[in-house]
Amino acid sequence: MEKGSLLYTGKAKNVYGTNEPDVLWVEYTNQATALNGKRKEQIANKGQLNSAISDLLFKYLTSQGVTNHYLKQISTTVQLVQRVTILPIEVVVRNYAAGHFVTKYNAPSMQHLVPSVHEFYFKDDALDDPFMNDEQIIALAIATQTELKLMRQQADMVNILLSNLFKEIGITLVDFKLEFGYTTEHQLILADELSPDNMRLIDDVTGNSLDKDVFRNNLGDVTVGYQIVLTRLQKLFTKLTEENN
Amino acid sequence: MEKGSLLYTGKAKNVYGTNEPDVLWVEYTNQATALNGKRKEQIANKGQLNSAISDLLFKYLTSQGVTNHYLKQISTTVQLVQRVTILPIEVVVRNYAAGHFVTKYNAPSMQHLVPSVHEFYFKDDALDDPFMNDEQIIALAIATQTELKLMRQQADMVNILLSNLFKEIGITLVDFKLEFGYTTEHQLILADELSPDNMRLIDDVTGNSLDKDVFRNNLGDVTVGYQIVLTRLQKLFTKLTEENN
Repeated sequence: MEKGSLLYTGKAKNVYGTNEPDVLWVEYTNQATALNGKRKEQIANKGQLNSAISDLLFKYLTSQGVTNHYLKQISTTVQLVQRVTILPIEVVVRNYAAGHFVTKYNAPSMQHLVPSVHEFYFKDDALDDPFMNDEQIIALAIATQTELKLMRQQADMVNILLSNLFKEIGITLVDFKLEFGYTTEHQLILADELSPDNMRLIDDVTGNSLDKDVFRNNLGDVTVGYQIVLTRLQKLFTKLTEENN
Repeated sequence: MEKGSLLYTGKAKNVYGTNEPDVLWVEYTNQATALNGKRKEQIANKGQLNSAISDLLFKYLTSQGVTNHYLKQISTTVQLVQRVTILPIEVVVRNYAAGHFVTKYNAPSMQHLVPSVHEFYFKDDALDDPFMNDEQIIALAIATQTELKLMRQQADMVNILLSNLFKEIGITLVDFKLEFGYTTEHQLILADELSPDNMRLIDDVTGNSLDKDVFRNNLGDVTVGYQIVLTRLQKLFTKLTEENN
């Protein structure tokens, strides 16, 4: 597989083409951003940790029947994924109140949200990714009702699988963000990354954040928590593989 | 009917109790506010115009079967209404893109929204009345799914009736805000006021705003448009009454 030209620079990764038209080359970088990109820092090892965690989580979802864009890891910070056209909508799922949800609505921090809340954000940097409801999205033809329904269903499936997975390793999945894209065969599938950059994870024993909130709130070295998440996931999957043999 | 003690001071009206427990005394004031109350002005005659327009529109909705809190006008700026406990949700219906909808989502001004868009805002001054989706409102127990459904249905009914009514007098109903409240018999009904303070109205011939946008955007004397709306409504209702006799 040969790396092609740069297609897209994200907050924490760069996406390139390859010599195969349906395959993209994703490089995880060490960049961390907050305040919608207004604050930027380089954090040693973050790209490698995110890449490793995302690799494990996508492989797990695939094994559980969740179709997604992930193909494989080819170096510690490079992954190959299926080429998709990303729908300009971020899907946020919240199991507990945290972050903006607490400040915007004066919800008690870590209030259990029953049922879990889905939020859609219009991916548009110039507009600061505004929060929208279903009817607005449909009226402005940003997505169809069918697409919103499919993304909600997929997000629920991911939520059940990942919540249970993290529970096994003593971590609570507070909330997370997903993105979806169309394959060249026009199938809408899960894309983007699955890492502590895009989800809130709380250690059930210490109550510590094991995610990007440590960076957002200047609570120290963010990679300490990422490493805990990775190590526990690796141990769990090793155990599961041994049990299956 | 005797005026009782002040219960509530709104942006453009004051609400008092009366000697009857289920009846409230609403005084329309001349106050105009913008920027969520940060800008305030007194505008001669505005209270009287809003009261007269709201009187006509509520009586029309009642005649068409829409249950609401309105009882009657007892002076040019005073109305009696049924006592309700207002649900802390503002229901906005948009038929065309205008105002925040244009700036927040970069929608073309006056784009026809099909189907019409409903938005819910949590009435909370300290939080600046945040926009919320159904799932957030339900998870935080601000309202139930049943209440949201009922408000959507009522708002659709009001939208059809008022859009057609304004069309008869050469005016387009661009968008509007409604509030609902529980009666002492626990029936959720339409409440608040129905005036150009709470709706956008465009003259079909001149294209001029006949609503509070004139004040918000410093385009001159806001009451000129309000008077046009009132005069046309009065003529239409006089005609309709004559036709029925």
